[in-house]
Amino acid sequence: MSYLDSITTEELRGLTEPQLRELCGEIRTALVRNVSRTGGHLASNLGAVELTVAIHRVFDTAVDRLVFDVGHQCYVHKMLTGRAGEFSALRTFGGISGFPKPRESVHDAYVAGHASTSISVALGMARACALAGRSERIVCLIGDGAMTGGTAYEGLCDLASSGLPVIVILNDNGMSINPNTGGLGNYLKRLRLKHSYLVFKKRYRAFMQRMPGGRAVYRLTHRMKERLKRSVLNESMFEQFGLAYSGPVDGHDIGAMEEVLRWARDQECPTLVHAVTKKGMGYTFAEAEPGKFHGIGPFDPETGETAPSSSDFSAVFGNEMIQLAQKDPTVCAITAAMTEGTGLGGFAALYPDRFFDVGIAEEHAAAMAGGLAAGGMKPVFAVYSTFLQRSYDMLVQELALAGQHVVLAVDRAGLVGADGETHQGLLDVAYLSSVPGMTVLSPSSFAELRAAMHEALYECRGPVAVRYPRGGEGAYMDCSEGAAVRLRGGKRRVILTYGVLVNECLQACDLLQEEGLETGLVKLNRICPLPEEEILGLLDGCEILLCAEEAEESGSIGMRVAALLERNGMSPELLCANTGNGFVPHGSVPELRRLCGLDAAALAGRMREAEHG
Amino acid sequence: MSYLDSITTEELRGLTEPQLRELCGEIRTALVRNVSRTGGHLASNLGAVELTVAIHRVFDTAVDRLVFDVGHQCYVHKMLTGRAGEFSALRTFGGISGFPKPRESVHDAYVAGHASTSISVALGMARACALAGRSERIVCLIGDGAMTGGTAYEGLCDLASSGLPVIVILNDNGMSINPNTGGLGNYLKRLRLKHSYLVFKKRYRAFMQRMPGGRAVYRLTHRMKERLKRSVLNESMFEQFGLAYSGPVDGHDIGAMEEVLRWARDQECPTLVHAVTKKGMGYTFAEAEPGKFHGIGPFDPETGETAPSSSDFSAVFGNEMIQLAQKDPTVCAITAAMTEGTGLGGFAALYPDRFFDVGIAEEHAAAMAGGLAAGGMKPVFAVYSTFLQRSYDMLVQELALAGQHVVLAVDRAGLVGADGETHQGLLDVAYLSSVPGMTVLSPSSFAELRAAMHEALYECRGPVAVRYPRGGEGAYMDCSEGAAVRLRGGKRRVILTYGVLVNECLQACDLLQEEGLETGLVKLNRICPLPEEEILGLLDGCEILLCAEEAEESGSIGMRVAALLERNGMSPELLCANTGNGFVPHGSVPELRRLCGLDAAALAGRMREAEHG
Repeated sequence: MSYLDSITTEELRGLTEPQLRELCGEIRTALVRNVSRTGGHLASNLGAVELTVAIHRVFDTAVDRLVFDVGHQCYVHKMLTGRAGEFSALRTFGGISGFPKPRESVHDAYVAGHASTSISVALGMARACALAGRSERIVCLIGDGAMTGGTAYEGLCDLASSGLPVIVILNDNGMSINPNTGGLGNYLKRLRLKHSYLVFKKRYRAFMQRMPGGRAVYRLTHRMKERLKRSVLNESMFEQFGLAYSGPVDGHDIGAMEEVLRWARDQECPTLVHAVTKKGMGYTFAEAEPGKFHGIGPFDPETGETAPSSSDFSAVFGNEMIQLAQKDPTVCAITAAMTEGTGLGGFAALYPDRFFDVGIAEEHAAAMAGGLAAGGMKPVFAVYSTFLQRSYDMLVQELALAGQHVVLAVDRAGLVGADGETHQGLLDVAYLSSVPGMTVLSPSSFAELRAAMHEALYECRGPVAVRYPRGGEGAYMDCSEGAAVRLRGGKRRVILTYGVLVNECLQACDLLQEEGLETGLVKLNRICPLPEEEILGLLDGCEILLCAEEAEESGSIGMRVAALLERNGMSPELLCANTGNGFVPHGSVPELRRLCGLDAAALAGRMREAEHG
Repeated sequence: MSYLDSITTEELRGLTEPQLRELCGEIRTALVRNVSRTGGHLASNLGAVELTVAIHRVFDTAVDRLVFDVGHQCYVHKMLTGRAGEFSALRTFGGISGFPKPRESVHDAYVAGHASTSISVALGMARACALAGRSERIVCLIGDGAMTGGTAYEGLCDLASSGLPVIVILNDNGMSINPNTGGLGNYLKRLRLKHSYLVFKKRYRAFMQRMPGGRAVYRLTHRMKERLKRSVLNESMFEQFGLAYSGPVDGHDIGAMEEVLRWARDQECPTLVHAVTKKGMGYTFAEAEPGKFHGIGPFDPETGETAPSSSDFSAVFGNEMIQLAQKDPTVCAITAAMTEGTGLGGFAALYPDRFFDVGIAEEHAAAMAGGLAAGGMKPVFAVYSTFLQRSYDMLVQELALAGQHVVLAVDRAGLVGADGETHQGLLDVAYLSSVPGMTVLSPSSFAELRAAMHEALYECRGPVAVRYPRGGEGAYMDCSEGAAVRLRGGKRRVILTYGVLVNECLQACDLLQEEGLETGLVKLNRICPLPEEEILGLLDGCEILLCAEEAEESGSIGMRVAALLERNGMSPELLCANTGNGFVPHGSVPELRRLCGLDAAALAGRMREAEHG
């Protein structure tokens, strides 16, 4: 019998070292087996096996609060807290989530999904504990990548000043998603050298004590130095900020990790434990290519091979960027630690001078793009819809108000599938439309994406967003022209849509046609500013209008079209199909479309019902 | 004749030291004289006089790019670049802005208004220069307060890794708006001690060279240390990140500042110049109370006295918070460096344990509030509408998705007046309504604000925003109940509004009544979720509807009400009065309302026109 199937956190604390090694082996096998079937985040979880085991041997996460940063490295934690048996349904509709979810388990302290907020959340919890006189320990686990995000720094500053005993575990694999560059990355590299310094200090002392008169000199200089120790000498940045610091520790050595965590648990001030781990540890293919195995689809566990991927919007975007850069030396590309995810790998290799990976720092990325534009460049910031939320203020101030022509390539717009609630791109329609002067283009096919990039760079002014979905195109592969186009005739009944959902809408039109209910189809290529005249013209004579979109209802295009019609005294019966005003869970995109009533059958049903009801 | 009236930046470079002293005196006199009449940011500009003069003697801001952070410390720069004569109209409608504005002058490199983005913008500009082969120098001027914002840290990290010769001038007055606490504040305090260390090093070397054998020991240890110098020893955090660092320098010593700026100008790598200045320098009252003279209304320059302020929404909020905290030990208050501005001074003094000033760090503030709520507290984050834009992602992820009951006290919602474009609170209606599950209350009077705070804390779930304007209430001082109320009868013509604009609407109703055009008035107390049933009921029989609001059109309540009516087959003639889809400049609130057609006369005119047209 294996340990993993049934082990409780209490039993975990009783295991011997050889038993722990066996358990870690079982965990790695289970991770590879399950993720090879369901897809998911593999490399970071393989790197955090011993670290997570050590945390659970020192802390009781049913009482103590373990706050994950980003959260995709929570699989081992889930396995050790009664959910090992549910991993075959990981990230599938109705199955367990790939991210911490308090409603799944009391052991999940807080939702996570976006980077760099764990220290802030943990500090809030610690302040609540202090006010209520409770004594549970608050721990947060943050990677070196997330530590480059500004919010982590804001949290560290406030934590230091609070003096509260929050334990920050820095899981440093020197990588984040792409190998991280920048000030903190360099700094951490050097901190790992601190060990050499401690060895030097010991040798220096020994040497001076053998020198004639050296002992006196050593004592004197030592005293003078101690007086200055509270100044900026010989301390890590974290110590300089006022945190107790311990590390670097080998994050794969359970004994060493336990020791340092027990030390941290007993401090009465904020502490930072610096653990060094290897991404992908224990699975050869993931160790060799940690980027590929960061977030991965199903693969063959024997060979590490994934199914050959058909082309997707990200790849088409990346290729188009290469074409554009070839012709125009002012075209630049920016990513926030998502070079491969956004399809920019090829661009980065061909145009390294015009490629900027700024780390997990979406706010900086947007403001920096503004500076590039002010200097005469044509910057394109490629970013997932959900992560662009963090740049909202910069979109308003540093881009729109500053009047800078910056292109936002908004990837993963709409339903994203298995990553679920924290990663759906359902809000960008609302928040981008609220940025004064923003243009938003919404292509439905690869050809339209290429055309939209050209339009954004050469025909628009100010900030322009080109939003496109995760994955590939559907049956609609045309390249329509104009801000709004009619794809199917039919005046009385009309479906209005945009983006890749046009494929479901075309099918819905077909279903309705078969029943004798001819239904027109209007597709918007530009959703902001709304092409009002074109829409009013195309809807002339419409009696039933169905607005279908993969977006939140509040601020949706359906709402904006409704207001447009009202202002113009047009009053067809109006139906809106969208993802509602809540959060949409994980599952496959077709499953989620069914859940939201956005599949062809449901859309046809709405129209049929309105016709006959 | 004074220097200030006519000096060019070229002439400035030719002045002798006594002449410079005289010029600085003139600048201070002009600052105090003008700001005492117009109001504005005084203390920070008084502190930056010599610093700014030194910058203009070393750099040519018509070519070199000087990027201000926040920007309210740009007055001296404006005076030295041909705008000294325009200061009598500072911050007034049609006059010069209190913030950098590229459309005012080629010397203003970029818009500013929100904190912590200057390094990012400057780095973008530097990258553009490098790509285009241009050689202008890029300088940014950032205060120690803005340096606590996460974006500044993101910018520093990326700047360090870029290796580009951006010059960051850190204007450290140890204050920001409130005396700043937290990791970086402590750190900078200690850095100012570095001077003592350099003196120590010099003495140590001298001492060792006099010792028998000491010279050899010194050489040996010096060599060993040099080898480790690239490790974490004896360097400032900035040096550890990879920037060349010089400081601290006395920012009031023009000669010393010039010297260090020339050094920085000649580096071929990123540099940070650390200048120490005194906020309010040279004006006794401002030196004594820099907080009061940070952003101030008109005052008596002889006594430093301001007109006794009548009560405003911020003060009422602050007092209500004290009442609430008295009864409920779980009520906590959070501010991002705006204790006085948000009216929380009294709360901070009475309940220091439950008061958290996190520095300029709105993202952290929102996420930390989520942690407090998860720990059983009732956190209230008081923040200006425009600055809350920066927390957008945290509102979605750490509050709404996490289901945490956090109250956002959204101050300065609507038109704010003299601070202008960067500070208007015109977007919160749109972006708050797009956060899934957010409740938004919009009181119109002090009494309603108190009631709304109670409702937000004890009758709502999840995140709740209570939005209220800058300044005082108008003639409407009632406390209406319910999510939507009718304040004036009249079915055929109805004005729908919310917030303090109700005062203009009441007057508009009076004007129309005098002409025999009876007009109803519906006021919303809750604008999200929209009280749909109540609105439909109150608008039953309405033939002309005017939606009036101090908010951007896109995502406005007028748009949402229009969509609601369309979906319900109601079709009154619909008029929307709002601030449009652009940015609104500075001026008094009554002037700006007139500009936007939101004053009583304009509103009455719209209704009259619809009636007769």
